[in-house]
Amino acid sequence: MTDKQRHILALCGGVGGAKLALGLSHMLAPGGLTIVANTGDDFEHLGFHISPDVDTVMYTLSGLANPATGWGRDGESWSFMESLRAFGGEDWFQLGDKDLATHVERTRRLRAGLPLSETTATLCKAVGIHHTVTPMTDGRVRTVIETPHGPLAFQHYFVRDKCEPVVTGFDIKGAATASPAPAFQRALDDPALSAIVLCPSNPFVSIDPILTLKGVREGLEKTDVPIIAVSPIVGGKAIKGPAAKMMAELGLAVTTRSIAQHYASFLNGIVIHDEDAAEEESLRSVCPHVLVTNTVMKSLEDKKRLATDVLDFAKKI
Amino acid sequence: MTDKQRHILALCGGVGGAKLALGLSHMLAPGGLTIVANTGDDFEHLGFHISPDVDTVMYTLSGLANPATGWGRDGESWSFMESLRAFGGEDWFQLGDKDLATHVERTRRLRAGLPLSETTATLCKAVGIHHTVTPMTDGRVRTVIETPHGPLAFQHYFVRDKCEPVVTGFDIKGAATASPAPAFQRALDDPALSAIVLCPSNPFVSIDPILTLKGVREGLEKTDVPIIAVSPIVGGKAIKGPAAKMMAELGLAVTTRSIAQHYASFLNGIVIHDEDAAEEESLRSVCPHVLVTNTVMKSLEDKKRLATDVLDFAKKI
Repeated sequence: MTDKQRHILALCGGVGGAKLALGLSHMLAPGGLTIVANTGDDFEHLGFHISPDVDTVMYTLSGLANPATGWGRDGESWSFMESLRAFGGEDWFQLGDKDLATHVERTRRLRAGLPLSETTATLCKAVGIHHTVTPMTDGRVRTVIETPHGPLAFQHYFVRDKCEPVVTGFDIKGAATASPAPAFQRALDDPALSAIVLCPSNPFVSIDPILTLKGVREGLEKTDVPIIAVSPIVGGKAIKGPAAKMMAELGLAVTTRSIAQHYASFLNGIVIHDEDAAEEESLRSVCPHVLVTNTVMKSLEDKKRLATDVLDFAKKI
Repeated sequence: MTDKQRHILALCGGVGGAKLALGLSHMLAPGGLTIVANTGDDFEHLGFHISPDVDTVMYTLSGLANPATGWGRDGESWSFMESLRAFGGEDWFQLGDKDLATHVERTRRLRAGLPLSETTATLCKAVGIHHTVTPMTDGRVRTVIETPHGPLAFQHYFVRDKCEPVVTGFDIKGAATASPAPAFQRALDDPALSAIVLCPSNPFVSIDPILTLKGVREGLEKTDVPIIAVSPIVGGKAIKGPAAKMMAELGLAVTTRSIAQHYASFLNGIVIHDEDAAEEESLRSVCPHVLVTNTVMKSLEDKKRLATDVLDFAKKI
């Protein structure tokens, strides 16, 4: 199979996943990359349907993202939020003036009966994205965080409560009966599919919602296509977000091995950072192929280089 | 009755009406003024409930209005609108970033089941308004403009089509069965009510929707309280908006006399501009009391002076 015929399926959550997705988009032709974004942390807020991970991928791939935060839009203004606060409105979830247009237009299309996948495709096209970006499903999936004080809706845990509550488990409501979105299913069924990449996203709240969709985990367990995870854990820490904190609270070692074990039923290869090279041997008992490289993506060059490393690694498996 | 005990009920539409309402608010104690805003031009747009006249009154009384336009907010920014346009969203109705907070918070409260009147009271209090501002009704009233090419929703006629279509009539849908909002009804029933002022607003699309509400016109025809209109027509023109154009298209003379005739069944006094002084005599056959003064309100002083003139005129009737 030539590179031109390759088709890579990338599963991702927010900031970390979007970085690798951007790298992959630079290395692959538009027809050769399908990016599936988690929608387990979607929520309804102030009357809007908000899809944080879809938006992070869309803004990152279109160059509209805020480079300082990784989420939200660059050059954002906050007049709406300040005025809302003056009215005593809910202000725990930051909605920039530009970002708001995404939520308004998405919500308008959903209310008109269009599916989220089609709406996402339209918005992505409008901002100049040529690769396929799809929400994981058109169904309603909502990740619930279980804590000793009861369940929390994902954004309440993540944004409002700043990931402070102790996590005891997860309930990915609706996932088991929700079908993969059409473009996701097409990629899974594509005879030209040459690798599935689990981007360096949170395994519990970014990747698991995707895997829990109807038929997805079973499909990955059966497929001959190499499945590669890029570890979101580097040096015992998560580059961003609560993955390491969650692992510790769940009684798991905060290691790349725990990541590999999490995906053990289908994983063919794992990509870990240079500073975790010592874990390579112990990893091999869980995952047959290990690539040690620089997985930290700061510049666009970092993202393209890691994407190239991942694609080369997949070819060798 | 001392001035302290007076209670004035002002009926108004958008920019012109809000100017006199602001003048009245400077001359009367908070308990002595009830301002009723037309909601016949309310509409649902992009998922929001938009109440243009209520907002113009709210922004004008709170000092938040854009002094250049009379509507919208001062120091407004347009990031949302520009981003929405980039997504191919509907951009014919200008929604500023600050203004949007009003629509989002209002819509959220309405969806939670709160009536428009209570929502308006909350928003007005939040921006520091101490006088009573109420939408004319909590019911659903929608002004439809009849044209030779069929009916047009009010904002389609007014904003999208820039008042260009010829007007053949009006259909104020829902008004006949909608009750006045609680604060409006309380003012109508108040034994201390000492005058009803029809602000210089469009008689067809700003004042008529209020008059058409269940029981209102009949109440005005029966009351002993003096009812005074400030003519929106000055020198054969409307200060702002399509009133003069509509009158001409409906075959009416564009005169203060046509305004008085429009309200003839209950009108006790009319206030006209100095340059229309020649119409005073012919007016008396339609309306018993006429005050000729400067009705053009540019500065705050103009507004306070006209409010004072109107209040003094009411006392004499």
